Amino acid sequence: MKKRSSLHRKNLHKIFYPDSVAIVGANKVKGTVPYDILMSIVHANFNGVVFPVSPGERFIAGIRTYKYVIDIQEDVDLAILVFPSAVCHLALEQCGKKGIKSVIIISAGFREIGEKGLERERQILSIAEKYDISFIGPNCLGVINTDPKSHLNASFARKMPEEGPIGFLSQSGALCTAVLDYARAKHIGFSKFISFGNKADISEIDLLFYLMEDEKTKVILLYLEEVSNGKELLAAAREVIQKSGKPILIIKSGRTEEGAAAAASHTGSLAGSDEICDAAFEQAGIIRCDNIVDMFNRAIAFAYQPAPKGDKVAIITNAGGPGVLTTDAAIKTGLRLAKFSDETAKYLKQHLPSTSNRNNPIDVIGDARTDRYNAAMTATFKDNDVNAVFVILTPQSMTDIDLIAREVAKVSSHYDKPVYASFMGEADVQEGIEVLQRNGIPHYQLPESMADALSCVVNFNKRLELPASEPGATSDINNESVHRILNKATGNNQRLIAENQAYSILKTYGFPTLPVRVVSSEEKVKPAANEIGYPQVMKIVSDDIAHKTEVGGIVLNIQNEDEAVEAYGSIVRNVKEKSPESGIQGIMIAPMIKDGVEVILGMKRDPSFGPVLMFGIGGIHVEIYKDVSFRVAPVSKEDAMSMIEAIRGYPLLGEFRGKKARDVQLLQSCIVRLGQLATECEQIRELDINPLILLDKGCYVADAKIMV
Amino acid sequence: MKKRSSLHRKNLHKIFYPDSVAIVGANKVKGTVPYDILMSIVHANFNGVVFPVSPGERFIAGIRTYKYVIDIQEDVDLAILVFPSAVCHLALEQCGKKGIKSVIIISAGFREIGEKGLERERQILSIAEKYDISFIGPNCLGVINTDPKSHLNASFARKMPEEGPIGFLSQSGALCTAVLDYARAKHIGFSKFISFGNKADISEIDLLFYLMEDEKTKVILLYLEEVSNGKELLAAAREVIQKSGKPILIIKSGRTEEGAAAAASHTGSLAGSDEICDAAFEQAGIIRCDNIVDMFNRAIAFAYQPAPKGDKVAIITNAGGPGVLTTDAAIKTGLRLAKFSDETAKYLKQHLPSTSNRNNPIDVIGDARTDRYNAAMTATFKDNDVNAVFVILTPQSMTDIDLIAREVAKVSSHYDKPVYASFMGEADVQEGIEVLQRNGIPHYQLPESMADALSCVVNFNKRLELPASEPGATSDINNESVHRILNKATGNNQRLIAENQAYSILKTYGFPTLPVRVVSSEEKVKPAANEIGYPQVMKIVSDDIAHKTEVGGIVLNIQNEDEAVEAYGSIVRNVKEKSPESGIQGIMIAPMIKDGVEVILGMKRDPSFGPVLMFGIGGIHVEIYKDVSFRVAPVSKEDAMSMIEAIRGYPLLGEFRGKKARDVQLLQSCIVRLGQLATECEQIRELDINPLILLDKGCYVADAKIMV
Repeated sequence: MKKRSSLHRKNLHKIFYPDSVAIVGANKVKGTVPYDILMSIVHANFNGVVFPVSPGERFIAGIRTYKYVIDIQEDVDLAILVFPSAVCHLALEQCGKKGIKSVIIISAGFREIGEKGLERERQILSIAEKYDISFIGPNCLGVINTDPKSHLNASFARKMPEEGPIGFLSQSGALCTAVLDYARAKHIGFSKFISFGNKADISEIDLLFYLMEDEKTKVILLYLEEVSNGKELLAAAREVIQKSGKPILIIKSGRTEEGAAAAASHTGSLAGSDEICDAAFEQAGIIRCDNIVDMFNRAIAFAYQPAPKGDKVAIITNAGGPGVLTTDAAIKTGLRLAKFSDETAKYLKQHLPSTSNRNNPIDVIGDARTDRYNAAMTATFKDNDVNAVFVILTPQSMTDIDLIAREVAKVSSHYDKPVYASFMGEADVQEGIEVLQRNGIPHYQLPESMADALSCVVNFNKRLELPASEPGATSDINNESVHRILNKATGNNQRLIAENQAYSILKTYGFPTLPVRVVSSEEKVKPAANEIGYPQVMKIVSDDIAHKTEVGGIVLNIQNEDEAVEAYGSIVRNVKEKSPESGIQGIMIAPMIKDGVEVILGMKRDPSFGPVLMFGIGGIHVEIYKDVSFRVAPVSKEDAMSMIEAIRGYPLLGEFRGKKARDVQLLQSCIVRLGQLATECEQIRELDINPLILLDKGCYVADAKIMV
Repeated sequence: MKKRSSLHRKNLHKIFYPDSVAIVGANKVKGTVPYDILMSIVHANFNGVVFPVSPGERFIAGIRTYKYVIDIQEDVDLAILVFPSAVCHLALEQCGKKGIKSVIIISAGFREIGEKGLERERQILSIAEKYDISFIGPNCLGVINTDPKSHLNASFARKMPEEGPIGFLSQSGALCTAVLDYARAKHIGFSKFISFGNKADISEIDLLFYLMEDEKTKVILLYLEEVSNGKELLAAAREVIQKSGKPILIIKSGRTEEGAAAAASHTGSLAGSDEICDAAFEQAGIIRCDNIVDMFNRAIAFAYQPAPKGDKVAIITNAGGPGVLTTDAAIKTGLRLAKFSDETAKYLKQHLPSTSNRNNPIDVIGDARTDRYNAAMTATFKDNDVNAVFVILTPQSMTDIDLIAREVAKVSSHYDKPVYASFMGEADVQEGIEVLQRNGIPHYQLPESMADALSCVVNFNKRLELPASEPGATSDINNESVHRILNKATGNNQRLIAENQAYSILKTYGFPTLPVRVVSSEEKVKPAANEIGYPQVMKIVSDDIAHKTEVGGIVLNIQNEDEAVEAYGSIVRNVKEKSPESGIQGIMIAPMIKDGVEVILGMKRDPSFGPVLMFGIGGIHVEIYKDVSFRVAPVSKEDAMSMIEAIRGYPLLGEFRGKKARDVQLLQSCIVRLGQLATECEQIRELDINPLILLDKGCYVADAKIMV
């Protein structure tokens, strides 16, 4: 895999910047994909040579064709395959022989049609491996490079998009056409535009790295239906963001179960649980978006305006109502209203009529023309407390909409602060909006979207400035004994690790466990119980019993040796009665800890992201309020802390109702170590520490369940 | 107030359907409001006579003017005042003398500029009262009636909107111009369009009733910055919805505190707490919207399509990705995917290619043309399990966008089921979208908005079908003693009612209280304690102490008479030490109830909605998760139940962890009675029952605080 990745890094350049392109499977029939692609290349004024390859034609649209790629005498940098899927491998074999290393396979009829198609994919991949070919697709729309150096539209998209700083990657080809259409209307420009389809070879991860290094790309957008390798995606995103400072915005569809089912029938995707995906993206610094409109609303803020130095905004409006709505939206998304300096106040007083509102939000009033907008913008751009400016306009009968749009562009060009605009309405304001968009002023139909976009930029930049946290600082742990226990269990086809062994595993990984004794006959109870001390807890030890309470396998709050003997007897009786087929390895005696806060730590393996940790406070917090947080393991101390702080019940771990603050630092390191355990011991499928009793100083594992 | 309302009902008709209109303050200066209004009326082809009134001109735009309204010989139905605010009262006086009963005051310079303007408002209102005039405004844009019978554009909006089934009311004039512009671009039509400004006389409530009876209006929209009389608004909304079945959609701005501050500086509004507003709207069946786009997305669903019979939707798409996004959105908003019948499956198999997905969502594939969309629509419209159809389109190179739009309109016209469409993209799909909009097919840029709109319609209709619940079924309670206690307290300038008296008030209103004894000397403790029984609780009784725990004024779990005496002593000592200035009325002894769930009932008076009830479960539920619900009193049994079910912790009141279900029915009636108490005893400013201990059978007030 690693080897292919570095191959892709080399070959991807020729996909976007080829000197010559062969279209294998070209034809003369208008309205078909092969013909459309050839025309796309020609119409876009490709800066290179195109060779249509078609056994049956001598020329297409006046362009000389070749029977087979091997018939082309010159070197060919890129081949685009639009051959039927059943014979695609033959064409690819020929590309290999011709020495072509970069290929786009447009053809459908692969994985998305089932097992037969999947077999075809394996076949073409093995040919690619044989010849060191890298390919995009199959089942895709193609790629576009707006860079004048290449100006390649190797896709069957109708029109070439404008040039711009946004790199767009999409798993869905059909969505691409909607995106291109949407972007064209809004004058949103792309650096590279890539439909990668079934990603049988080159994946979104390879493309992320390519766009990281692409000078023309400032913002990376990705539409994803299937996260095939979550861990790699996160690692790649983290690296791209840290090295290049480029934001990554992702739409991951299939949020609901029904959505995921629809995804499965579409590209044969297997969607992971959505909360995990949310947490994982957050952890890697990826900005998750719900839909295309949200995504582009945020993308244009990153792409077309300077980064704000802080979260304080000035709002300028010619109508009170929208001013209120914008203020609401700003506060709701975590922005703050700037407080104007005396100088600003003075300037505004001089230049705005007395009926205007000169506080923030500034209301220049319905009959405002360019001069008042100019005054308000000039004053606020100069004010040191203002980090960004929102300009709102409603079309009154005296509003010179286009002139004000021009003024926004002109005034803002003198300052290194972002400005966003919302010209409300639709028909009358359209021309003004065009002026804004052509001048790189992000325009928003709604104040909410404007505030969301700025808030997104502010948060992303804030995070960029934090020192990069090590993903999973591991300590050196001698885990031989742990592997021995786990391997023995898996060897025996055991599903559950006995609790005392689970304790020993956790102890090895530095978890504070309680001193325990396991007894297996009544006469041994008294000495063991006295050794542990009172009050104490007794629990059944059995590989077969996952839910101890249900079989009467736990007695709490045992106060003396007589109660201990009684408890022993009752547990044995209960288990024999309620679960007669279960083996009994013994009865475990442990001290009973009071006055602690019970928290839950858990781990499960997600098919896409690998080991995922869960944290929550026990009881109703988890049960009723689903108040839990997730992170993908391994985790850094910072990850662990953010996981702890993410739950709503976090205040319960601080000083609360006269109780001392809990030992959060220790909890943090427990989470880090749990991450290490999950990473180092792949035999563990699931794990529950429920509860971990958290004291003001110290903590104890009070129940542990490890499934293999 | 009542009297003026019935006057308004009479006079409003002439505001929308006048035979003759006088424009008082007309002039010849293009680009000024008076001139623009005259031109609006003329250009809209008003079906009546217009009389410009202008002392200085003989004619305006060729139309004969009059010096004063009284100079007009004919009857005048409606006067539009565009006079400077300082002399507006003179013009209004003349209208009164002329016998004009219906007036629109466009002029600004009233309440919104402060005390002086408010005085002017009072002045014009008293003139209106003198002459039985009803007026809209001041400080507004005017009104529009698209009904061909009148075709009146009595506003300074640039263009007349299309005719349609939506009635629009707005407090903000500036927002109106944005709304008209937005609606025109989307072919959204209005029945009546009213900017009511400062609502010094005719309010949104009068206008709601007018639109209730207006045959041309099917859906009512309202943009509100200030809820001046919440109780009346709720009552009016309830009546309108129940009598006419017309949905009411409201944007109430000022959600955040900063937003509310901006609102205050705008129209001198006082915004109530936002959660209360949410709850109150919900209670009345009002649909609250966040912004104009959301509002119209929902409004067109109500206005232009038949009501769905259920919540099951069929999705038709030519692209898998958007199909997944739409499915996600549908499920998220509570809709369900229809399961197709065998007949439908058969039909789809016959008419769609084998590569298509014929389950729901139906994917007709990228190269689909009109015939496949027709097949998918025909099959799903006919299917009994389908209540509504979503049609998604992405612009592929072979997609005949306009024809498909026409097909949607044609096929859907044969069925009484709603269809909504989302043609994704922007430029290429624009023409198709126009076709849809002109044919009354609601179009949505995003699947989310489409799903939200349908879900909104489904929920509204579901609620309409429920039997109307009586708002606050009151029982006959002899509350003389209650008033005596409360009046005495207010007479004494007391803020807090002593707890034993609070108990007695609650007891009168049917709350189960505990038997209590109040003792004020140590020797009386033992007999009283023995009478109550053990375990028991002792608490300080004092008008001065609101937080008993803080002064050591509570001892719990007293087991016998010796502990009782000890507890008495310690409370007295504690209070004397920690709060020496507080009076001690005695010590209250009450039984201690165990094994109950502690819930909180509360009441506060909202400046806009009046008494508001709160319900939650005690402890961390309220403190950490803010898990509470609100309703405006009085409440019906159904309101009370919805309030109980609204909290996330509701399952804790059912059978939970082996405990019996709580007496929810009794809780429900406690809430209803609390609503009655709040309504009948206006002396109570705030009230807290914290906790009310809820058992499996029965409940007890265990602590009550009443503030006057």
